Amino acid sequence: MSERAGAKSGGAWDAYRAAGVDIDAGERAVELMRASVAATRRPEVIGGLGGFASAMRLPAGLREPVLVSSTDGVGTKTAIAMALGRYDTVGHDLVAMCADDLVCAGAEPLFFLDYVAVGRLFPERVASIVASVADGCELAGCSLLGGETAAHPGLMDPDEFDLAGFCVGVVERDRLMDGTAARAGDALIGIASSGLHSNGFSLIRRIVAENDLDLAEDYAQLLCRILGPETAAEPETEGRTLGEVLLTPTRIYSQAILRLRKRLNEKDADLRGVAHVTGGGLPGNVPRMLPEVLGAHVFPGNWPMPSVMRLFGALGGLSGSELRSTFNGGLGMVCAVPADAAEAAICSLDDDGLEAWEVGVVSETEALGGRYSES
Amino acid sequence: MSERAGAKSGGAWDAYRAAGVDIDAGERAVELMRASVAATRRPEVIGGLGGFASAMRLPAGLREPVLVSSTDGVGTKTAIAMALGRYDTVGHDLVAMCADDLVCAGAEPLFFLDYVAVGRLFPERVASIVASVADGCELAGCSLLGGETAAHPGLMDPDEFDLAGFCVGVVERDRLMDGTAARAGDALIGIASSGLHSNGFSLIRRIVAENDLDLAEDYAQLLCRILGPETAAEPETEGRTLGEVLLTPTRIYSQAILRLRKRLNEKDADLRGVAHVTGGGLPGNVPRMLPEVLGAHVFPGNWPMPSVMRLFGALGGLSGSELRSTFNGGLGMVCAVPADAAEAAICSLDDDGLEAWEVGVVSETEALGGRYSES
Repeated sequence: MSERAGAKSGGAWDAYRAAGVDIDAGERAVELMRASVAATRRPEVIGGLGGFASAMRLPAGLREPVLVSSTDGVGTKTAIAMALGRYDTVGHDLVAMCADDLVCAGAEPLFFLDYVAVGRLFPERVASIVASVADGCELAGCSLLGGETAAHPGLMDPDEFDLAGFCVGVVERDRLMDGTAARAGDALIGIASSGLHSNGFSLIRRIVAENDLDLAEDYAQLLCRILGPETAAEPETEGRTLGEVLLTPTRIYSQAILRLRKRLNEKDADLRGVAHVTGGGLPGNVPRMLPEVLGAHVFPGNWPMPSVMRLFGALGGLSGSELRSTFNGGLGMVCAVPADAAEAAICSLDDDGLEAWEVGVVSETEALGGRYSES
Repeated sequence: MSERAGAKSGGAWDAYRAAGVDIDAGERAVELMRASVAATRRPEVIGGLGGFASAMRLPAGLREPVLVSSTDGVGTKTAIAMALGRYDTVGHDLVAMCADDLVCAGAEPLFFLDYVAVGRLFPERVASIVASVADGCELAGCSLLGGETAAHPGLMDPDEFDLAGFCVGVVERDRLMDGTAARAGDALIGIASSGLHSNGFSLIRRIVAENDLDLAEDYAQLLCRILGPETAAEPETEGRTLGEVLLTPTRIYSQAILRLRKRLNEKDADLRGVAHVTGGGLPGNVPRMLPEVLGAHVFPGNWPMPSVMRLFGALGGLSGSELRSTFNGGLGMVCAVPADAAEAAICSLDDDGLEAWEVGVVSETEALGGRYSES
């Protein structure tokens, strides 16, 4: 953690601490996060640069490496974390948001950097946030190579924080997925999301406030109260509060997607498109993996809408198609594959513990009357 | 600008806009920033990825490329920008903070990504911020490859914003500067800062508040009032207000440092260390470019203290050595070079329009009694 480990010592720190920037707290935070960061170290990392920057070699054997990069935040999901005093999950969301954008281009995540802005630097909290970033990095297969913790006294409330992440991956030039491979008739494979992921939280918070919901209420009880006693909830929500269900970390798909591609290649097929379903939901993201002349036709009856979206749909007066454009609608990733490889794709994802469905078909934009339609 | 250009359309946007996230404003901001971003495009950039991520080839001819990366923010310098309603400078600071960390490892900046968090998305403001990021990228020689604008309604005040930047560069493995090259007796060359740069602003803001300073006051008049009529100010501060002087963009050194190294190499010398003087000032940063057994002995009489630091030193009761550990003390970069190359180094920097001085010498840590001392 280059900047974090900087030798901040000597000089006018007493005056600076009085201005709200506690250097010792920063150093304590660095100590607390050291082990979790070290666990993400890939063999390509080069250490000992003196702390100004971080360095990493490329994986061996690439003929024409292309660097792929992405930056993102977790939106106002942080506000739920603050309300619950939970700092050990949103870092995982942050990695998901960035690393899973890279695999849409076919890239393997290599390294990650995080930026944490806080009102006041509480070492245990920052270390907890960064440890959850490191957890996410392990799942995505990338090294947490550096980061910055910025204290903004006076500008942010002491308890407030914000996160930004940055991920770089690499792919062989002729393996780069550039959105041109899909063909009309390809199958769309949707992979189950773990819940809301990290988009739509400004709306979630408004609905929570307007309906005076209690984040500490038992989730099953709330579902029963709003949607009726026969409403089914996912087993993993059992015994959890509303706040805990809202904070469910965003699923990280990158390693499973890279494996899926490899397995399809072994069967002489290939992934023809990968869309990470974030802001804008299915209509905002699925067409982005397709050539302009093609669009996605989706069958929403083919997979279940998560209970948390049904709940907020009922509370906020949102239709099913609105839930699929504001949230992820239950699908965190959508892939395009040749129709005859659909079953193999679903099996490969199942091997990785991911539930997937054939959720639609790639069609001519002209025939669809647009780049996205549902039936 | 991948995420920014995402196809956010269709669906429940009316509900979402009511929750404070204005998608149309985001799209207008993207339109406004398009030209300035395009101006930073390097030939290695690969376009047309569908918007999930950004891609770039490595420069040709590298045998064993090492990626070097850095992330940083601009601290609470944003608060001064907000108070002045100036959004066209802090992006430049952001690039300086990140790109100039990379050259400390000998790396050439390749690409940059920015994260802008706002309370409310005012398209012209965000475009102005991003245009200043693009200006900085042009100076640093890197492509502004992507970015994220995040609206945090309810969590941040409408006028509030924060910035984080991420820069990636590349260097040939055997040209990587890893802090092991300096020798006792090497000269320390300090390069003039443009003022406060982007550190120490929490303290600056406290001193402004405690002394009830008016950011709109004429800077020369304020200097005269606090430090006396004979106080010299830098010519570039003439006719400017206190707020404008505080907002002076951080100087960007990367291209000049890369050229300096090339010129020294042509004379069979080399740069033996480069330290970017940011948080922690000279004592916090200069030793970071040296082996553990070596330290820096600095002669503060060899270069002038900027008037803005003298001013805030007087107002805040900070000594000269405190100004050099809280702020940059007038030096934005310090390099270690063989003693007989000091003059050539200063000439090279002068050719690039940078004022530089021989500011100290590399010595044994044991002889110095520490890693940093002054006399």
